[in-house]
Amino acid sequence: MSKHKELIIGMFGFGVVGEGLYKVLQQTPSLKARIKKVCIKHPDKKRSAPSELFTTDKDEILNDKEINVVVEVIDDANAAFEIVKTALKNKKEAVSSSKKMIAEHLQELLDLQQKTGRSFLYESSACASIPVIRNLEEYYDNDLLHSIRAYCNGSTNFILTKMFDENLGFKEALLLAQQLGFAESNPKLDVEGFDAVNKWTLLLNHAYGIVTSPDTILFNGIQNVTKSDAAVAKSRGQQIKLVAQAKKLVLGGVGAFVLPQFVTAESPLAFVKNEYNGVVIESGFADQQFFYGKGAGSFPTASAVLSDISALRYGYKYEYKKLYHHTPHVINDDIYLKVYVSFNQLSDIPKEDFEWIEQWHAQEDRKYLSGVIALKKLKEGSWWKENGTSLILEPDPIIENIEERRLKKKSLELAGLH
Amino acid sequence: MSKHKELIIGMFGFGVVGEGLYKVLQQTPSLKARIKKVCIKHPDKKRSAPSELFTTDKDEILNDKEINVVVEVIDDANAAFEIVKTALKNKKEAVSSSKKMIAEHLQELLDLQQKTGRSFLYESSACASIPVIRNLEEYYDNDLLHSIRAYCNGSTNFILTKMFDENLGFKEALLLAQQLGFAESNPKLDVEGFDAVNKWTLLLNHAYGIVTSPDTILFNGIQNVTKSDAAVAKSRGQQIKLVAQAKKLVLGGVGAFVLPQFVTAESPLAFVKNEYNGVVIESGFADQQFFYGKGAGSFPTASAVLSDISALRYGYKYEYKKLYHHTPHVINDDIYLKVYVSFNQLSDIPKEDFEWIEQWHAQEDRKYLSGVIALKKLKEGSWWKENGTSLILEPDPIIENIEERRLKKKSLELAGLH
Repeated sequence: MSKHKELIIGMFGFGVVGEGLYKVLQQTPSLKARIKKVCIKHPDKKRSAPSELFTTDKDEILNDKEINVVVEVIDDANAAFEIVKTALKNKKEAVSSSKKMIAEHLQELLDLQQKTGRSFLYESSACASIPVIRNLEEYYDNDLLHSIRAYCNGSTNFILTKMFDENLGFKEALLLAQQLGFAESNPKLDVEGFDAVNKWTLLLNHAYGIVTSPDTILFNGIQNVTKSDAAVAKSRGQQIKLVAQAKKLVLGGVGAFVLPQFVTAESPLAFVKNEYNGVVIESGFADQQFFYGKGAGSFPTASAVLSDISALRYGYKYEYKKLYHHTPHVINDDIYLKVYVSFNQLSDIPKEDFEWIEQWHAQEDRKYLSGVIALKKLKEGSWWKENGTSLILEPDPIIENIEERRLKKKSLELAGLH
Repeated sequence: MSKHKELIIGMFGFGVVGEGLYKVLQQTPSLKARIKKVCIKHPDKKRSAPSELFTTDKDEILNDKEINVVVEVIDDANAAFEIVKTALKNKKEAVSSSKKMIAEHLQELLDLQQKTGRSFLYESSACASIPVIRNLEEYYDNDLLHSIRAYCNGSTNFILTKMFDENLGFKEALLLAQQLGFAESNPKLDVEGFDAVNKWTLLLNHAYGIVTSPDTILFNGIQNVTKSDAAVAKSRGQQIKLVAQAKKLVLGGVGAFVLPQFVTAESPLAFVKNEYNGVVIESGFADQQFFYGKGAGSFPTASAVLSDISALRYGYKYEYKKLYHHTPHVINDDIYLKVYVSFNQLSDIPKEDFEWIEQWHAQEDRKYLSGVIALKKLKEGSWWKENGTSLILEPDPIIENIEERRLKKKSLELAGLH
């Protein structure tokens, strides 16, 4: 038994995740992981653990030579970065659940891991309980990964589910999510796609070796999706979901974005409702894999943090194989997207930005079009993020070769089929 | 780039899986894996590869010092064992997809790996393209795995789907599966549960450290499931599936079996249709994970074999953590099961074997009962496997504490509620 290392943990944060972890580690001596000290902000709060466990002085953990693992489960991205940086420099392993911090400091954190040789794990930071980072890193460890699509934000998925299944409006659904604890009181980060694009930044690295920052990726949230969009989706037998997507392109590089998208009933993603997350991976031999699990909430997060701690006992570290052992990919924005746009006034839509527009629909309360537009045009403009305008990708939205598609369209038109 | 090892592969078998692998490796030089020699049985068959690639002499591979990896994708379990054994002894790594061989020789293969220090990988042998072994081994690497349920046989799932969705009888559905290549011409292995219990033998090892052989595990296939059983399931809003199940018991040990089971519409497993496989894992913090992917067919198998080859480049080996680093579990048969049994004649059912029978139903063409029976009683008898008798587990079938349950039942009866 037990070739593995005994872990002495210093933890930052004792909210629901931190407290849950503390309890499980106490009840599971076989894990050989002991929390020695917990750094908190407010020492006066009543807590269900002996008071000598707590400190407000971060150095009591970061400078403690016996502590070999630092776990941070706090809310403040700047403080989290300082903690992880110092921990690694002080030759401790680190575990974090802060996607924002990791996405914004990706290059520095990569460098720090190389320099210090320490392990930095953050499985809980993307899709919470789904072991997506570990699987991308270890199982899809070759360059045969064709594409990856994910719902990686539980709050938005919960809201969209309620809009679809219970016919709620966006604001009602959001309120319900907040009441049930699936959305923050300030829901901007979730609802407007910031959280999802942070997660996507990490996952693009483990999937394709891409090192980038969230602000270079095309994204939006679901704040503009209306009941009438939902009605259009329903009439097609589809749903609308916030889909993070990446696809290896024939023309080189990877197409990547996070946008609302129509999802067909046949897709495994159609199964993913409420606060759950889902990931669909297409790899060599054209096979589809689907992973599903809770994507929001303290328990799923704690469970992923626990699996990181567990992995540290065996000296596990991410090897960043796509980045260091293969030729890393870069994002290629030279693609075109099939989009649906609903709007109030035609004048809100820059028609000249589109390659072509295939359909116009005018309903009583709302108009919409479908067409093809260059991803770069979307990046240049912001009309499609404006209040009242709702842009939703069609299923399988990427067009790589626009000229070929144009010719095909033309010949169909000539044949009177379009 | 490329810290990793160059692989020189000797392969046994050049059927659809073998040929697919050969092509992908040729097209993917970045994998740094080259097939040097392929051992086949019938040298005269026309093959889409240069003839100098092939040999009929196994020693040309097993004694070739340059070859460092032996991959076997043949159908003959006895030959496969000899190949893997010799390969490991000759200091080569080995990759296999032969669940039957591995299940039947588990202890010997474990010993061989310990003795030779070589890696032996077989991800394709259970749930084909779903990385379930790797995830059990690496991600659920602590003793917080509460339960695991899986459909691990694509053929039976295909047949059951057709019986449900298209109202086919068992024999028609089987014929269709054979026509589409999802079932062997001799379907006994699949249909009667032998394939599933072989896979379950492996997975019990990676999940719980259990070392056992297939014939100690309670199992059956779907050969006795009738259209009238399907009708009962439908009337309850449920499906019938062949579910392999294991659960850590409060009273110690693990309850494990492979039997047809009613599955509720809410279960992620209800989503898994046709030739797909699915795995639901419940782990610490009571969280549910779901993995889904193709479970039958040459491409899914090839994709899993490829991922094993890929992992060997980084020196990956199963550590059998539950077996060697934790206290391994054993199967505990001291449990009771909630069952449904349909039958033609009451005299076929040994009523005295049941703890109690809750319901009797007599329909025009078919009768059924539901009740509670000791797992050991099922193991002792075989009446429930006889032609004309169909035993199907209820959802959540395990009862650990029969006395408690008996008292509860009694008090409900006294209160007139039962």
